[in-house]
Amino acid sequence: MSRGQETREEILMQAFKAASMLGLDGLSIGTLAKQVGMSKSGLFAHFRSKENLQLEVLQWITEMFTQDVIVPALKVPRGEPRLRALLENWMNWHESKKVPGGCVIISAASEFDDQPGHVKDFLQASHTRLVETLARVFRGGIEEGHFRADIDPEQFAFELYSLILGFHHYTRLLGDPNAKDRLKAAYERKILSAKA
Amino acid sequence: MSRGQETREEILMQAFKAASMLGLDGLSIGTLAKQVGMSKSGLFAHFRSKENLQLEVLQWITEMFTQDVIVPALKVPRGEPRLRALLENWMNWHESKKVPGGCVIISAASEFDDQPGHVKDFLQASHTRLVETLARVFRGGIEEGHFRADIDPEQFAFELYSLILGFHHYTRLLGDPNAKDRLKAAYERKILSAKA
Repeated sequence: MSRGQETREEILMQAFKAASMLGLDGLSIGTLAKQVGMSKSGLFAHFRSKENLQLEVLQWITEMFTQDVIVPALKVPRGEPRLRALLENWMNWHESKKVPGGCVIISAASEFDDQPGHVKDFLQASHTRLVETLARVFRGGIEEGHFRADIDPEQFAFELYSLILGFHHYTRLLGDPNAKDRLKAAYERKILSAKA
Repeated sequence: MSRGQETREEILMQAFKAASMLGLDGLSIGTLAKQVGMSKSGLFAHFRSKENLQLEVLQWITEMFTQDVIVPALKVPRGEPRLRALLENWMNWHESKKVPGGCVIISAASEFDDQPGHVKDFLQASHTRLVETLARVFRGGIEEGHFRADIDPEQFAFELYSLILGFHHYTRLLGDPNAKDRLKAAYERKILSAKA
């Protein structure tokens, strides 16, 4: 990495930490400049606008999520093993130190769903890709003969995605120590009932 | 209602509309003063702080939710009919004109889960009451002999609550026109599989 890239990475990391605690909308170039010890104008030169900064943070975290959760699951054999790997990685992601203040991708969805613009567009596209991935992984399981062919993969994806949202909510807001067990119990039963 | 109460109701209604679009954190006494045509100091005299304003808006919307969703369901016979009424009312609430920008109670949960304070405490308490209500209504169904006694009501409540979050997410962020059908299909199957 060049010096410029290193600086950029460092700024994005700090911005992500701030967004994780205060929400993406709480990010400001001014506050971030103080955190990374740069002048506001210097930081502005990097990002040009608050919206650009928000977009870059989202791209950065989405790329990290893809590398940590999706990519390793796609290396696991298709069907049930891949679906399980995906869910397992996803759960671990929520517990990892990388997202100390909870998943920015989920929080940002509630923050921006009523604010038309590039940030909402980005979130809409990335969440859509995510549920499509879930549906595709499940469909692979039907093709492998692991899951029943009469189950609608999109419906299955909706229900699994809902459980992840519930898990996030129980963990972050309610502070429920059983959230992980509840999620696991729910998706184990779902997988069991979907078996061919 | 006295004149003062009327003014207060009107202010809270405007504040709620703003929060519904911009998030509870986006509320400011200054902007709200412009919307309701009052001086900032006049509005400040009503609420004293941004946090108080946020709390009053939350109390207001939570009370409305209770009156529209919970109270009518508790008038329906215990067990499966009451559970169905609760879910039906809840779904209708999300579609009602009262929450044009999506449910503030759900959005605020993501906004405030990392900001310790009275607002987070209020949200934590009200969401906890909500999942407890879901579990209690399901437990009533076990006692009535409608549902299987080997199902954990707290787990059932977690799964139903997750589906509501998923429905909110699919409707608000993804703009999926099938969100309601997906929610209904999911909870119909859940109720069916829970039948005694």
